[in-house]
Amino acid sequence: MSRVFSGIQPTGEPHIGNYFGAMRNYVRLGEQYGKQSLYCVVDLHAITNPAASDPRYLAARTFDMAVANFAVGLDPSQVTFFVQSHVPEHQELAWIFTCLTPVGELERMTQYKDKTAQLESVPAGLLMYPALMAADILLYKAGVVPVGEDQTQHIELTREIARKFNHHFGETFPEPQAVYNKEALRIPGVDGHGKMSKSKGETSTLGILEPLDSVWQKLRVAPTDPARVRRTDPGNPDVCLIFDYHKLFSDLPTIELVNVECRRAGIGCVDCKKKLMEGVTAHLTPIQERAEELRADPSYVRDALAQGAQEARAIAAPVMEEVREKVGFLKV
Amino acid sequence: MSRVFSGIQPTGEPHIGNYFGAMRNYVRLGEQYGKQSLYCVVDLHAITNPAASDPRYLAARTFDMAVANFAVGLDPSQVTFFVQSHVPEHQELAWIFTCLTPVGELERMTQYKDKTAQLESVPAGLLMYPALMAADILLYKAGVVPVGEDQTQHIELTREIARKFNHHFGETFPEPQAVYNKEALRIPGVDGHGKMSKSKGETSTLGILEPLDSVWQKLRVAPTDPARVRRTDPGNPDVCLIFDYHKLFSDLPTIELVNVECRRAGIGCVDCKKKLMEGVTAHLTPIQERAEELRADPSYVRDALAQGAQEARAIAAPVMEEVREKVGFLKV
Repeated sequence: MSRVFSGIQPTGEPHIGNYFGAMRNYVRLGEQYGKQSLYCVVDLHAITNPAASDPRYLAARTFDMAVANFAVGLDPSQVTFFVQSHVPEHQELAWIFTCLTPVGELERMTQYKDKTAQLESVPAGLLMYPALMAADILLYKAGVVPVGEDQTQHIELTREIARKFNHHFGETFPEPQAVYNKEALRIPGVDGHGKMSKSKGETSTLGILEPLDSVWQKLRVAPTDPARVRRTDPGNPDVCLIFDYHKLFSDLPTIELVNVECRRAGIGCVDCKKKLMEGVTAHLTPIQERAEELRADPSYVRDALAQGAQEARAIAAPVMEEVREKVGFLKV
Repeated sequence: MSRVFSGIQPTGEPHIGNYFGAMRNYVRLGEQYGKQSLYCVVDLHAITNPAASDPRYLAARTFDMAVANFAVGLDPSQVTFFVQSHVPEHQELAWIFTCLTPVGELERMTQYKDKTAQLESVPAGLLMYPALMAADILLYKAGVVPVGEDQTQHIELTREIARKFNHHFGETFPEPQAVYNKEALRIPGVDGHGKMSKSKGETSTLGILEPLDSVWQKLRVAPTDPARVRRTDPGNPDVCLIFDYHKLFSDLPTIELVNVECRRAGIGCVDCKKKLMEGVTAHLTPIQERAEELRADPSYVRDALAQGAQEARAIAAPVMEEVREKVGFLKV
């Protein structure tokens, strides 16, 4: 059975876009692949632009990202969950891949161009990012990589690096396949301005660990069908983000009821939002309770991460052993 | 007392230019700094251009470079002598430095421009080289770095990376000082075409482990003062590479004798070369015998390198611990 690898950026609290787009998928793949599914909080990627990352918060954010994933149901005793900087083999392999990758190919990456377009001085970490990402994946000879569609080019480069290594030093790495989860792309921001995204700020996002009264304040003022001005106007759920959320959080009878009643003005937006809030509450309450428990017991989280790093290194060690020998490093 | 760090490229057998320029200096510094002088065979640098390095020979060349250095008198029980790839903290720190270094500064390095001028596809390892070199030095908080003058720019960048890290994450690294040995620059190639250099091929070099009859064949046909056509013409030692070699290998009375007799045609070039060969033989014989002994006992060399890597890691470990904490990686 091939392995699954996924990197998780330690960038603040996850929102429901992350939850439905990625985290729930991790839980599903975790149930399927068990210890062969590796989830890695990529703190080494988080420092690629030092101006944008504050060393005072990195450790807390890394910890919080573990809490959030454990809270939604990823069980560290069933999968391999760890922090990237705890497995130095990532950087070790990244250096070797850096030597195999032409500068020109790295410069051509769309994400690199986007991220650096506004920068006066470009940190080399941003340029080398894809070589480290290739190392993340190939260090475990992972075959399946759940990612967002913005990572297509990086996965293609990872495949090319695998081919190049195999050609230079002998067959070693499989070519991994990206697995996309498109649900994330369809979840609108609660401010009504496009996709829910951390980069647009907190007015766009509903955090999975956000206090429920704060979630309600955002839903209360969220835009609905702009054509429905008065309570007595019929509405169109197909253009209403609240209805999109109903499809994620509510049970089928509620979804159907809202779909029918909104169109004939049988339900007002406030009542519709209150019904949504019931589903949100039912969904997020156990997650938030679990997160509270985990935060109250940090040694559980730390032990799980230490154990995860050990498990990851147990897979990485023989791969690096093989790599070192093939590259020609002296063994003593 | 500050530490000394020097990187040794595992690129084939050292020649007498390396010997008088660097290796003898290592021995001297080793006597002065003991275990605080670190000598590192930089195999991770050797792979920066994979097209130029053959994985079949890298391990043997790494081993041979240890043999050569031990043979000239560097005592692994007195200094810290190790192989770069045996201490993965080098790559670990290099990644952090990569994130701190602007792409533009790396592109400005003269050596990078020289090395890549003829390349169609430029491996990113060549661009990142100075970030790894900075990690090599700062991982041990070394203050003294014996290098060739071509490394001035890289040492300046290392100092800048140290300053940048200290500024971002708090005072951590000293700014290392380059120590130049200019003798290397003055040693002419035996073919009479400029400085002795590996890159010019074996006709330029006299290997310290080269069989003495091969050394003699090269000296025999080496050019001398071109103005001295016949045996009876007086010569000018100041323009003769054989006289340069005498100054390295012969005792003072011989140097004086040659200096005087050449100018008045009292000694011919063949006899002068024979006198030189006596000094060369006296100098290289014990080195070559020691190298033979070491080659006959590879486990001594391997054990010394394993021990050296342990000693290096014992210094590197607390530095990396400090770095990880300052950068903000989660500790578990």
